[in-house]
Amino acid sequence: MEYDILIENGLLVTMAEGLPVVEDGAVLILKGEIAGCGTTEEFSEHKAKTRINAHGKIIMPGLINCHTHLPMSMFRGLADDLPLDVWLNDHVFPAEAKHVNPDSVEKWSRHSCTEMLLAGTTTCCDGYFHEDRVAAAVLASGIRAVAGQGVIDFPAPGVPDPKMNIKTAVEFVNQFKGVSPLLTPSIFCHSPYTCSRQTLTAAKKAANDLGVLFQIHVAETKNEKNLIQGLGSMTIVEYLESAGVLDSNTLMVHSVWINDNDMDIIRKTRARVAHCPESNMKLASGIAPIPKLIKLGVPVGLGTDGCASNNDQDLFSEMDMAAKLHKVALLDPCVMDARTTLRMATIEGAKAIGLDSVTGSIEKGKRADIILVDRARPHMTPMYDPYSGLVYSAKAADVDLVMVDGRVLVRDGKLV
Amino acid sequence: MEYDILIENGLLVTMAEGLPVVEDGAVLILKGEIAGCGTTEEFSEHKAKTRINAHGKIIMPGLINCHTHLPMSMFRGLADDLPLDVWLNDHVFPAEAKHVNPDSVEKWSRHSCTEMLLAGTTTCCDGYFHEDRVAAAVLASGIRAVAGQGVIDFPAPGVPDPKMNIKTAVEFVNQFKGVSPLLTPSIFCHSPYTCSRQTLTAAKKAANDLGVLFQIHVAETKNEKNLIQGLGSMTIVEYLESAGVLDSNTLMVHSVWINDNDMDIIRKTRARVAHCPESNMKLASGIAPIPKLIKLGVPVGLGTDGCASNNDQDLFSEMDMAAKLHKVALLDPCVMDARTTLRMATIEGAKAIGLDSVTGSIEKGKRADIILVDRARPHMTPMYDPYSGLVYSAKAADVDLVMVDGRVLVRDGKLV
Repeated sequence: MEYDILIENGLLVTMAEGLPVVEDGAVLILKGEIAGCGTTEEFSEHKAKTRINAHGKIIMPGLINCHTHLPMSMFRGLADDLPLDVWLNDHVFPAEAKHVNPDSVEKWSRHSCTEMLLAGTTTCCDGYFHEDRVAAAVLASGIRAVAGQGVIDFPAPGVPDPKMNIKTAVEFVNQFKGVSPLLTPSIFCHSPYTCSRQTLTAAKKAANDLGVLFQIHVAETKNEKNLIQGLGSMTIVEYLESAGVLDSNTLMVHSVWINDNDMDIIRKTRARVAHCPESNMKLASGIAPIPKLIKLGVPVGLGTDGCASNNDQDLFSEMDMAAKLHKVALLDPCVMDARTTLRMATIEGAKAIGLDSVTGSIEKGKRADIILVDRARPHMTPMYDPYSGLVYSAKAADVDLVMVDGRVLVRDGKLV
Repeated sequence: MEYDILIENGLLVTMAEGLPVVEDGAVLILKGEIAGCGTTEEFSEHKAKTRINAHGKIIMPGLINCHTHLPMSMFRGLADDLPLDVWLNDHVFPAEAKHVNPDSVEKWSRHSCTEMLLAGTTTCCDGYFHEDRVAAAVLASGIRAVAGQGVIDFPAPGVPDPKMNIKTAVEFVNQFKGVSPLLTPSIFCHSPYTCSRQTLTAAKKAANDLGVLFQIHVAETKNEKNLIQGLGSMTIVEYLESAGVLDSNTLMVHSVWINDNDMDIIRKTRARVAHCPESNMKLASGIAPIPKLIKLGVPVGLGTDGCASNNDQDLFSEMDMAAKLHKVALLDPCVMDARTTLRMATIEGAKAIGLDSVTGSIEKGKRADIILVDRARPHMTPMYDPYSGLVYSAKAADVDLVMVDGRVLVRDGKLV
């Protein structure tokens, strides 16, 4: 029997349950699926069409970016360091009105996919408008993605009549369901302050009827609650629960301004969270209580958010920042340790977006979303612990090879 | 007349007063000195032995790392995510006792210099023991450095008898004064909690008599004040002032736990500050009030601190982290803007360590410490503003060419 690919001689960091690490590890791949993983010796007699020598490299699952707005790379670094309302109203919204069209959406989504692949990201979860063109870019790039068509109660790119917002999203999901195993359509309700309660409830019902992920920005800024009609004395999370929006198929993005009771609601409803520390820091939104959520067992993934508020799509720097931010915020060097942080960027991220049976760890039966990280560079030497190395020292540019679904998309740090 | 080097066709970010930027810029170099800078057209007729085409690249001053412990790269990632006392007492101190010797100090200092040069750092300010061997590594690497021999009231590597600590430091300074224009010797008093008031005063007097920079860790952790004998009701900064330690030739490293009155003392005494955000975050020490210090006019430079608490020596990630940290800490997206942050890593850093007449900006008459940063990579595109691009998007690996004192040490991202 001949396999397609054997990756051998690498330090294998699986991110599977119990976090097994194999010093001289190997991964066997057949038809895009992980057919086995273990020691190099174990597979030395196996035949493979391609053998990849991972000597001096870490073999690990590709990173998962749980929150992106791919087309927004066109606005990278547009008008930084401004108050949020000035940034949005005087710069981002006018720029979007002027420059967002189907072609620019596809062009810059493709650009973002290139950036992410080069940085070791093999899966992303996106939400924007003209999402059919985001989907086209994603499919052309070869990355794995959840793509959510935006729903908002204002005229939006491609959806001039807000009354059509949910219908458009449903059509998008139907158009792309089953088109490719790499693409999972979704519905992305912008936020509780830009969608009415009625829209939230109806969009969530549509997502559940279609069996797709429901994404929503939640409690990103301190003042957001003042913008929500009919909130009354409820918190935003209580409001979302009362609107029937929270369940295990909902991804709550940001979740910065939430209290202990909100966290308990998130735990009980089994909703998931996407944590975007760099965006929350750069926009001065606040610090999400992520260590507490993780302690409660809530699946939390890591996201970069759009390029306009980061300004890149680099999960290596995002991990480093996340780990350090929570330590200093809580004055506790033990929180958000390297293992927890790397889990957030891999297997927990996969759980958060509902793809953990497919990706997020290197395990037999999962799809082969795998990256090799060079551990021989000066800033990676010495390496006493691979998790520390990957979170605190590794850089996006150390990514040497990127494989999605068994297909090599980046080799020697360059797009194939 | 023939010049040595002409760098042309690049986006020139000078970091000189007023922050002039030249779209199609050029820099002329003769005998390691910047002989002129302006537009490419301006110098097109000038003869030069070497012409460097900076098309698609940013030409900027090399970055200045204001606080390092170069030999500590040997402990990179040793025992992370632990309480500070466990980390220090059970891991770092025993490891230092076992592994720090003159040869390991030189070997790993050399390693750190390589790491820093590849990441676009052209000057560093170091403090450790066996500093003569750090100096040897620095001289061999070609980087510019301030090197401070450690003074501490405990037996230390190379200084088994603490009574000899100041004498050893003075001897070090005398040994290396005038040896190379790239190396500036200094005295590094470890901290007010590891040095007596008498030691502090005597070491500072020695530094001033020798005309060299006096470096000291100050108010890094919340509990540090409890460890200082004879502090009484004084703050640490008041104590240092009363010991005669603060003047324009003193670099206060960290300065996390300082109050408004302390900041006013720093301003009045004209002392300087080295800010190490990643180390302060990773060790959960706290957030230094840097935006306030800058507003007061205090020269503040950026430092990585030693590799054991970072875990790299990368000022690009340090800038990104610094800018974002202070925004979220103050819930103000306008503080620590990209220009301020880049100044901290260049010209303000040069001021902080007393080398601003030599380096820190691209200006006629300064030494040619210059780097080229690739602006064509996906994560650097588009670029509406070079400061935003350099602080929020650029990575160490984007550094293409590094020149110190007119000598090219890194080319095509690789050590020459």
